[in-house]
Amino acid sequence: MNNRDRILDMSLALMNEEGARAVGTTRIAEALGISPGNLYYHFKNREEIVRILFGDMEEEVRAALSLEPNDAITNERFAGFYLGAFRVQWKYRFFFGSLLQLLRLDEELAVRYRSLQAWSIAQIESIVRQMEVSGGQVARPITEAQTRSIALNMWLLYMNWIRHLQISGRGDLTEADMAAGVEQIFDVLAPYLEPTFEAKTRAVLRAAGAS
Amino acid sequence: MNNRDRILDMSLALMNEEGARAVGTTRIAEALGISPGNLYYHFKNREEIVRILFGDMEEEVRAALSLEPNDAITNERFAGFYLGAFRVQWKYRFFFGSLLQLLRLDEELAVRYRSLQAWSIAQIESIVRQMEVSGGQVARPITEAQTRSIALNMWLLYMNWIRHLQISGRGDLTEADMAAGVEQIFDVLAPYLEPTFEAKTRAVLRAAGAS
Repeated sequence: MNNRDRILDMSLALMNEEGARAVGTTRIAEALGISPGNLYYHFKNREEIVRILFGDMEEEVRAALSLEPNDAITNERFAGFYLGAFRVQWKYRFFFGSLLQLLRLDEELAVRYRSLQAWSIAQIESIVRQMEVSGGQVARPITEAQTRSIALNMWLLYMNWIRHLQISGRGDLTEADMAAGVEQIFDVLAPYLEPTFEAKTRAVLRAAGAS
Repeated sequence: MNNRDRILDMSLALMNEEGARAVGTTRIAEALGISPGNLYYHFKNREEIVRILFGDMEEEVRAALSLEPNDAITNERFAGFYLGAFRVQWKYRFFFGSLLQLLRLDEELAVRYRSLQAWSIAQIESIVRQMEVSGGQVARPITEAQTRSIALNMWLLYMNWIRHLQISGRGDLTEADMAAGVEQIFDVLAPYLEPTFEAKTRAVLRAAGAS
C-alpha cells in the first residue's frame, strides 16, 4: 500500500476510534510513524482527508442503494439494502457520530452531504414504489405521501442510530448494536409488508446480525 | 420578574437563537444589562443554568406524556401528546440541537437525560398499549415487540428532528418546520391505526400546525 492510502486508512481507523474532532494530522502522522511533512506532501489538511473519506463513503452508500428498473426485490435483495447501508455506516461510523459538527466546519462538505441525502431519500422511495408495483411484497396500498414519509423516516433513523447509541452511553459500539438499528429501520416499513415476505426478510436480517 | 428568572429566560432565548455553545455567562449578563457579578450571585456558571433549564424541560416532557390508567384516548387526546411534546421541543430547541455536546460536557446531565429518555420511551409504550386494549383506535394487533420498536422509533425521530432541519441547511427554524416533524412521527404508528381514528387525529395535528 502506498503512503497516501496508508494515511487515509489510518485516518479512518483513528477517527472511528476517537471521534473526528479528536484526530488531527499530527496524531495521524505519529500513528503511522511518518513525519508531518510526509503527510502534508499528500494532503493539505485534515479537512481534505475528511472530504476524501466522505467521497468513498458516498460511493458506497450509492452502491448499497442502487436499483435497476426491473430488479426483482426478493426478500434477500430487500434485506441486502439494509445490510449494505449498515456496513457503510459501520465502516465510516465517525462520520455518522459527528455529522453536524463536520458539516458546520466545511460548507462544501455540507452541500455534498445534502445532495447525497436527497438522492438517498429519493432512492428509498423508488425501492418502496418498485415493491408496491411488482406485487407479492406489499400487503396494502402505499400512497405517495406515505412513501415519502416512510423514506424520510428510514433515512432519519439510519443517520441517527449511532448518535443514539452514543447518547445512551454505549461507549464502544459493536456490530450487534448496529444489527439492532437495522431492525428499528425495517420496522418503519414492516406494517405495510405482506406477512410472509416480512418474516422472511426479518429472518435474513437477524441471521446476518447474529453472524 | 426577579433577576434569577430574568437570567434563566434570557439564557433560554439566547441559546435557542445562537446555540448553547455560543452563549456564555458574559453574553447573558451583557444582554440583560447586568454585571457578571450579579449573574454569578445567582448561578455558579453556564452549566448550572443549563441544568436548571433541563429540569424545566424535563418537567414539561413528563407533563406532555402523562397518562392516567383509565384515560380515554380520543383522537384529540392522542393528538395532544404529539402537540404537547413538540411545544416542549420548540420551547427548548437549543437542547435538541446540541444534545450530544451538552451531555459530553456534563456527566450529571447525561445521567438525567438517559433517565428521562427511558421514562419517555416506556411512557409512549404505555400509551400505545392503552390504545390497543381500549378498542376502536387500533386496526390490527400490535405485539409487545412492535410496541417497543414503535416507541423507540418515535422517540428517535422526536429527538433528532431539529438536528435534521439544521443539517438540511434550514437556518431559521419555524413552527411550520416543527409541524412537519409531528406528522413524520405520527406516521410511525399510523399504519396500525383504525383509518377513521387516524384521519381525525391527523386533521387535529394539521389544524394545530396551520394555526
